[in-house]
Amino acid sequence: MGTKHELLAYLKEHQGDWISGEALSKRLGVSRAAVWKQVSKLRDAGYVIRSSPKRGYIFSRAPEMLLPAEIRDGIDTEVFGRKEIAYFSELDSTNRKAKELAVEGAPEGTLVVAEQQTKGRGRLRRNWHSPFQEGIYASLILRPKLPPAEAPKITLATGVSVAETLLAITPVKPAIKWPNDILVNGRKICGILTETSTEMDAIDFVVVGVGINVNNRKFPDDLREIATSVYLETGRTFDRVTLMQEFLRQFERSYSLFLRSGFESIGKRWRELAMLLGKEVTVRMIDRTCRGRVMELDRDGALLIKSENGELERIYSGDIQVH
Amino acid sequence: MGTKHELLAYLKEHQGDWISGEALSKRLGVSRAAVWKQVSKLRDAGYVIRSSPKRGYIFSRAPEMLLPAEIRDGIDTEVFGRKEIAYFSELDSTNRKAKELAVEGAPEGTLVVAEQQTKGRGRLRRNWHSPFQEGIYASLILRPKLPPAEAPKITLATGVSVAETLLAITPVKPAIKWPNDILVNGRKICGILTETSTEMDAIDFVVVGVGINVNNRKFPDDLREIATSVYLETGRTFDRVTLMQEFLRQFERSYSLFLRSGFESIGKRWRELAMLLGKEVTVRMIDRTCRGRVMELDRDGALLIKSENGELERIYSGDIQVH
Repeated sequence: MGTKHELLAYLKEHQGDWISGEALSKRLGVSRAAVWKQVSKLRDAGYVIRSSPKRGYIFSRAPEMLLPAEIRDGIDTEVFGRKEIAYFSELDSTNRKAKELAVEGAPEGTLVVAEQQTKGRGRLRRNWHSPFQEGIYASLILRPKLPPAEAPKITLATGVSVAETLLAITPVKPAIKWPNDILVNGRKICGILTETSTEMDAIDFVVVGVGINVNNRKFPDDLREIATSVYLETGRTFDRVTLMQEFLRQFERSYSLFLRSGFESIGKRWRELAMLLGKEVTVRMIDRTCRGRVMELDRDGALLIKSENGELERIYSGDIQVH
Repeated sequence: MGTKHELLAYLKEHQGDWISGEALSKRLGVSRAAVWKQVSKLRDAGYVIRSSPKRGYIFSRAPEMLLPAEIRDGIDTEVFGRKEIAYFSELDSTNRKAKELAVEGAPEGTLVVAEQQTKGRGRLRRNWHSPFQEGIYASLILRPKLPPAEAPKITLATGVSVAETLLAITPVKPAIKWPNDILVNGRKICGILTETSTEMDAIDFVVVGVGINVNNRKFPDDLREIATSVYLETGRTFDRVTLMQEFLRQFERSYSLFLRSGFESIGKRWRELAMLLGKEVTVRMIDRTCRGRVMELDRDGALLIKSENGELERIYSGDIQVH
């Protein structure tokens, strides 16, 4: 750990207390001028640190940034958020970058975070609106030892984890819209994009991308009717680092439970959070369309739909419209 | 088309005839010195072109190389072998390179060919022995509009195409060993490695890699008992360009038939060429092992195995051992 990180950790540990330059200089084994230099660097990175000639320094607040040091600070996960965190002020797409890192061999748990995406992507190459520091735009690399056919369940586990995160930190009431959206009051608050690379019968890697609308105050005209944010639903801004940490905690829990004990308990929770069971729907898939009543989410993560002619159809993903 | 390619085409067109430097110079609209310079370049690339001060030039033979111009020459496909052919004298792995090109947006039909692979790969990161100019090492980029669950059928269609290629050009009698090997007299003559990149419910790309042992005269000790080549089975060397062209032709036919009319007729041919139906087998998958009798290849390309306790299991890929 460099002097800057030690200094930051020490100041945060004593949040609320003034600490003299001399005490910091002793503690870190550097000159008072060096302490001042590191404080300047932290301020450049967006940290608010007050100083007074008489009293020294006091930690005021962390920057409005999803900085790796902030995400790691106090997180109680085993792997997620503890491996490399590739942080970008701006990126075309966190999923694109994560795939690049995965191809280069990045391990499970590697996280890509951006304050802004210029080409944030959703399903079928749709755009995901990703303005600077308003939402969470993050992608996680996974390397599950699972057959490729199990990959769609990871999308469902991610949806459950985002919903649990919102329930734990905010007062909003999320619902899961199969397969990859989280809605609040019928509007999209989060999208999930899962990309999988397989080699014959083995998964090489899965990249799970999430876009969560947190502090967005408004949306462009074409999204106004269909998108919402935690801010728009509650009138309050929320700390993105706290939400990010909670998501990593929830998702690590769901993911390891899935690998260790199967999908059953996550599937059960998914059904509670989903809003589709029993509804009449039309699902447009890439090669066909199916209309009918949603009967069940089956063991494989597929939606079972009883079509109008009475046949049961298993569907893994598609555009769903509720009637 | 550059002067070099025009010159080559003209010389090959008149194979068996001497053509004077003057005639070539007129025909191509360049000086006789320029003709001589292009002939030198073709010789550098491995073409054998004889010359005589009195008679001019005569095409003798193409190099022992899988050159793009040779693969394209006279091929009667629509797409395969007609898009970009990325040719390498040596490459780590044609699949690795093809994935890189696919991520950069290379279109369906893009072909990667290498005379030698230093890290030729099989299933589960196994090695594929790829000595210089003895085999065919090639990977093709596909972008089928199919749900990801259909991808395993592409491996089966590739197996059928390789078997048909061997049947059409050589006297060997190939058998398909599910899911990704072609055997002759119980020994591996070809391996297939399919890698798929998916985005939720859509395939982004599939890379199909084939390694065919053509003119190998011997194998390393650890492969001697399990590998064979067309040469070792027949005592004759075969032209790799001809085999490559026939494979592209066969595979384009199977692939477009699959996309247009479904898997049925390819599945039927697969069953004829496969050697597993009715056999007692043990299949090791990444997460479990299954022992039983092979009952059928089902509509999805999965092997149906009646296990010892009487249950029917559907298996998409694994290591299979026949008892």
